[in-house]
Amino acid sequence: MLDVNAFAIIGGDKRQLATAESILDDGYKVYVAGFEKLELKKEIVKTTITDAIKKSNYIILPLPTVLKNNYLNAPYSNLQINLDDNFARNMFDKKVFCGNTEKLIPTSKIWNKIKLYDYSKKEEFAINNAVPTAEGAIEIAMRECEFTINNSQCLVTGFGRIGKILSKMLYGIGAKVTVSARNINDLSWINLLGYNAISIKELPFIKKKFDIIFNTIPALIFDEHILSKIGQKSIIIDLASMPGGVDFESAALLNIKTIRALALPGKVAPKTAGEIIKKIIYRLIKEG
Amino acid sequence: MLDVNAFAIIGGDKRQLATAESILDDGYKVYVAGFEKLELKKEIVKTTITDAIKKSNYIILPLPTVLKNNYLNAPYSNLQINLDDNFARNMFDKKVFCGNTEKLIPTSKIWNKIKLYDYSKKEEFAINNAVPTAEGAIEIAMRECEFTINNSQCLVTGFGRIGKILSKMLYGIGAKVTVSARNINDLSWINLLGYNAISIKELPFIKKKFDIIFNTIPALIFDEHILSKIGQKSIIIDLASMPGGVDFESAALLNIKTIRALALPGKVAPKTAGEIIKKIIYRLIKEG
Amino acid sequence: MLDVNAFAIIGGDKRQLATAESILDDGYKVYVAGFEKLELKKEIVKTTITDAIKKSNYIILPLPTVLKNNYLNAPYSNLQINLDDNFARNMFDKKVFCGNTEKLIPTSKIWNKIKLYDYSKKEEFAINNAVPTAEGAIEIAMRECEFTINNSQCLVTGFGRIGKILSKMLYGIGAKVTVSARNINDLSWINLLGYNAISIKELPFIKKKFDIIFNTIPALIFDEHILSKIGQKSIIIDLASMPGGVDFESAALLNIKTIRALALPGKVAPKTAGEIIKKIIYRLIKEG
Amino acid sequence: MLDVNAFAIIGGDKRQLATAESILDDGYKVYVAGFEKLELKKEIVKTTITDAIKKSNYIILPLPTVLKNNYLNAPYSNLQINLDDNFARNMFDKKVFCGNTEKLIPTSKIWNKIKLYDYSKKEEFAINNAVPTAEGAIEIAMRECEFTINNSQCLVTGFGRIGKILSKMLYGIGAKVTVSARNINDLSWINLLGYNAISIKELPFIKKKFDIIFNTIPALIFDEHILSKIGQKSIIIDLASMPGGVDFESAALLNIKTIRALALPGKVAPKTAGEIIKKIIYRLIKEG
Repeated sequence: MLDVNAFAIIGGDKRQLATAESILDDGYKVYVAGFEKLELKKEIVKTTITDAIKKSNYIILPLPTVLKNNYLNAPYSNLQINLDDNFARNMFDKKVFCGNTEKLIPTSKIWNKIKLYDYSKKEEFAINNAVPTAEGAIEIAMRECEFTINNSQCLVTGFGRIGKILSKMLYGIGAKVTVSARNINDLSWINLLGYNAISIKELPFIKKKFDIIFNTIPALIFDEHILSKIGQKSIIIDLASMPGGVDFESAALLNIKTIRALALPGKVAPKTAGEIIKKIIYRLIKEG
Repeated sequence: MLDVNAFAIIGGDKRQLATAESILDDGYKVYVAGFEKLELKKEIVKTTITDAIKKSNYIILPLPTVLKNNYLNAPYSNLQINLDDNFARNMFDKKVFCGNTEKLIPTSKIWNKIKLYDYSKKEEFAINNAVPTAEGAIEIAMRECEFTINNSQCLVTGFGRIGKILSKMLYGIGAKVTVSARNINDLSWINLLGYNAISIKELPFIKKKFDIIFNTIPALIFDEHILSKIGQKSIIIDLASMPGGVDFESAALLNIKTIRALALPGKVAPKTAGEIIKKIIYRLIKEG
Repeated sequence: MLDVNAFAIIGGDKRQLATAESILDDGYKVYVAGFEKLELKKEIVKTTITDAIKKSNYIILPLPTVLKNNYLNAPYSNLQINLDDNFARNMFDKKVFCGNTEKLIPTSKIWNKIKLYDYSKKEEFAINNAVPTAEGAIEIAMRECEFTINNSQCLVTGFGRIGKILSKMLYGIGAKVTVSARNINDLSWINLLGYNAISIKELPFIKKKFDIIFNTIPALIFDEHILSKIGQKSIIIDLASMPGGVDFESAALLNIKTIRALALPGKVAPKTAGEIIKKIIYRLIKEG
Repeated sequence: MLDVNAFAIIGGDKRQLATAESILDDGYKVYVAGFEKLELKKEIVKTTITDAIKKSNYIILPLPTVLKNNYLNAPYSNLQINLDDNFARNMFDKKVFCGNTEKLIPTSKIWNKIKLYDYSKKEEFAINNAVPTAEGAIEIAMRECEFTINNSQCLVTGFGRIGKILSKMLYGIGAKVTVSARNINDLSWINLLGYNAISIKELPFIKKKFDIIFNTIPALIFDEHILSKIGQKSIIIDLASMPGGVDFESAALLNIKTIRALALPGKVAPKTAGEIIKKIIYRLIKEG
C-alpha cells in the first residue's frame, strides 16, 4: 500500500542517508534500500528496492546515480543493482529524483515515460554545495599547514561559486586574500569586496609569495613555469574537477606539496550535503 | 668562542624548533641541543648543551621549561636533562628566555644572578596564541561535525582573548554566533560586534539549540542541568585550561560529544607558535 | 598640432572633471571645453571644443552625452552646444568615448564613420558604480535616521550589483540584514553569505519590522498593501531607476518617510566616479 | 500622588527626549519638565519640575547635568533652572540618575542625602556610545570626501573603544584600514583582526599616504612634523575630546582639511543615545 508523502531512498552514500534522516525528521515516512551494510535509526524502514518504491510516491536516487556497467551507485549495499528495464518499471506513476539523468535515461526506454528530475543540475545545488566544498578546503589547509590561516598569504584562483565563498571565509578568518580571475568583471568584484585582484595573465609576473593556493579552475593554470615562480614554499589545494589545474609532476619535482580535493561535500559535511538535496527535492515537488 | 647575536635553543618541541628555524631565517646563528631524535636543517647546528650555551648570548628554554622532578622539557632529546646548579651555571652573562620562571628559579640559587625573561607571561604571548587556538578549535569542529559551520548555531562561552578571536572567525565563516559572558561590558561588546549576547546566568533558560559549543571559561559552566537543556545534539569543544568547563561524566550520560582541546598552538600551528615566541624575544632584547 | 596621448574632455559635470584630473595625474595632456563656469587646476588646458579635439587623439563625452533637443550635456558651459554634423565632423580619426551612443548616433550621419565607444554600457561600469551608490545610500540613511545602522533591522530588496555590495556594507557596519529577492539562486546566496533571506513573494507575510528599507528593484514592490504591513516606522530609500519601486502616494498617506536617490555616484563620490570612467577608457584604448 | 514606576525627565536635549520616549514605549508613565520649546507626543506629560518629580520615583537629569553658573542643562526650556537647595530638596526619597555627579553634588548639601547614580561614568555607557560616535565619524567622512570609503586608505589612531568599532566598520565598508597605537598588546590585536598595525612612534616614518585620518587619541599626535609627512591630501576627522589630537593651525597652513567632531551620539543618533541611557538606568534600578 502506498503511504502518501512517503519517500524511498534507493542506494547512495552517507549523504543520501543524511537526506533520508532529514526527511524523516520532517515527519515523513522514509523507506530505504541498498544500505544493508549500515545500521540505521530504527524509524527508517529498511526493505527491498521493490517494496520501498511501491510504498512511496517520491523516489530518490543517488549522485551519481549510474556507475560504470550501468550499476546503481550503492556502496553500502551487499548487492550489485542493475539499472535495467526491471528497475525502471518500478517507477511508473512515481516522481523520481536522480543525480545524472543523461546516464540513467539510456539504461531503459521506460524512463521516457516517467517523471524524472535531476537535482544535481540545478544551479541551487551547485551554489549550496560550494559551502561544504569551501569549508572542506579550509579544513585541509588547517590540517596540512604548520602555520595559521590568519595572516597567511592565500591565493584563490577562479571566482565562480567556490571561489566566491572560499575567499569570503578565508578573509573572515583573517587571511590576506588574493583572488585571480580572467574576466574583467570578476576582477572588479574581487577588488570591491576587499581582496587583492590579479588577472590570470599576470600571475606569472607577480612577486608576492603565497603560503596557500586554492585552485578552482578546471584548466591548467599552474604549469611548470608558474609553479617555479609563485609556488615555492606554497601548498596547493586543487578543488577543480578533473583533470584539475595543476601540473602535478612539475609540482613534485619542485617539491611543492599538492592536494587534490574532490567531492568534498559528501565527505566533510554529509549532513549538510544531504539537506541540500532534500531542500531541492521539496522545492521540485512544490513546483509540481 | 662566542658568536655575537647567536641563539641557543635548548630543549622543547616542534614549536621551539620553529622558533629556531625562524631565527635562522632572519640571518642569525642558531645552536640547538636536546633535539637528537629529529633531523634538522643543516644550517642549524646541533651540539651539546654546554657548547650551545657557550657560543650564544641568547638562550631560549622551552614552554613549559620545567617538567616534574625538575627535568627540562625536551621530548626530542635522548637524555633526561636535570635542571640543577650545573645547568644554571652555564648561563652566567647570558640573557635567558624561558617558559615558566616560577618553576625554574627554585631549581638553583644561581638563577638569581642571571638575566631571566619569561616570554610566556607577556600579555602579547597570550593574545597572539589565541589565534592558533581559535583555528585549532575550528579545525576540530570541522573534522568532527557532519554539517558545515556556515549557517550552524554556534555558542562561544567567554569573551576573553580566545572568545573574541574565535567568535570573529566563526562569524567570518558564516556561522550564527551567540556569545555568552558574565560581565555587562563584555555583553555590550558582543552585541555591538554583531553576535547574539547572552548572560551566563541566562544560559539555562534559553530555548535556542546549539550545534557546536566552544567553551573558553575555566569554571564549571556546563553542569548537568545546563547540559540537559542546551547541549542535546550539540558537540562541545572545551578550550579552557584544567579542569575545563564541562561536567564530562554528565555529558557522557547525556550522549553529548565532548572534546577537550588543550595546548593547541604547538599542535596545530607550530610554525606560527614558534614565530610568536621569536617576536617576543626580539622585542625583549630590543628593550634591553 | 596633435599631442600624442592627449585627451579632450568635452562637457559634463564634476564626475567628468574628476576624470580629467585623474588622467592629468597619470601624466597625460588634458584639454577641456565646456567648463567655463568652473575654475580648474592650471595644468588642465581650457580651450574651445574645436581646439581641444584637434589637439587630442582621445575624446571623452559626458554621461549622458545627449540632452533633450540634441544638446550636449554641459552644465558648466556658458553655451548650449549643438550635437550636429559640425560637432561630429571634428571627430574624424579620433577615438571617441561617450555615455549613450544610441542617442548620439542619430544626431549626425558622420558618427557612423567614427570609432565610438560607450563606456556606460560596460558591465564593469555598473559593477564599480554600485559602490558609490551603496555608500551614498548609507550616507542618506545615516543622515536621516535618529538611530544607528549598527543593530538596526535593514531590508534590502534586490540582489543585483547594488543589492550585493549594499548588503555587505550594512552587515559590515553591524546591521541586522535581511535581503529579499525573487530568484531561488539569489536566495541561496543571500543565505550563505549570512543574511536573512526572504522571497519577494513572502514579503507581505513577514512579521519582522524594519527600521530602514533600501529598494533596488525597478518595479512596484512597495505597494499600499506591503507598505501597510512592513513599512510602518520604516524609512524607505529607493535606489531603483525610474519609476522606482515604491507607491509614494500611499507611503505619504501612511506617514512613511521615503527618499528617492538617483545618480548617486556623481553626487556623493565624483572623484571615484570619474576614476571608474577613466579606467574603462584606458582599458578600451589598450584593447584597441 | 506618586505613580509607581514613573519617570521624570528634567531638562536635556533630544537624546534625553529619546530616553523619555523609549521609556514610554516600555509602558511606563513619563513626566517631563524643561522641554517647553518642543512639541512632544501627547502621551508624555509636560508639567512643572516640582510636579514631575513629585509624581515619579525615578528622576533622570541630563548629560552634562550642570552648565556653567550652576544652571541645569536644559536647552529646550524657556527658563533658566538653578541647581540649588530648592532643586535638590525635591529629590528626597527618589532615585536620581544624572550625568556628572562631581559637578552636581557641590550645588547643594542635600545631595549627600539622596540616592544619586551617574550613568555617564559606567564603562557600559562609553562602550555603547562608541557606536554612534563611529557612525557619526563615517557619515562625516562620506559627506566630506569626493571619493568612496571603499578602497580608500584610512588611518585610525588609537585602539580604545571608538578605535575598535570604527576600524571594524571601515573594514566592513571595504576600506584599507591601518590602525596606529602605542601599546604592543593593542598592536597585536590590530594585526590579528586584519588591519595594518603601526606603532605611534613609527607614524612619522611611514611612506603610505592616507585619504582619511580618524584621530581618537586626546593628545597631540598630529603635530606639524607628522602633518607634513602623512597628512598631505588627507582629510583629518578628530574625534578626541578637548584639546584634540591635531595642530589645527599647522594643518591650515598645510592646506589639510580638518574637522573636529565632538558629542556625536546625541547629534547623529539621539534615539540610540537615549536608549543607551535608558538601558543603563534600568539596570541600575534592577541592581538596586
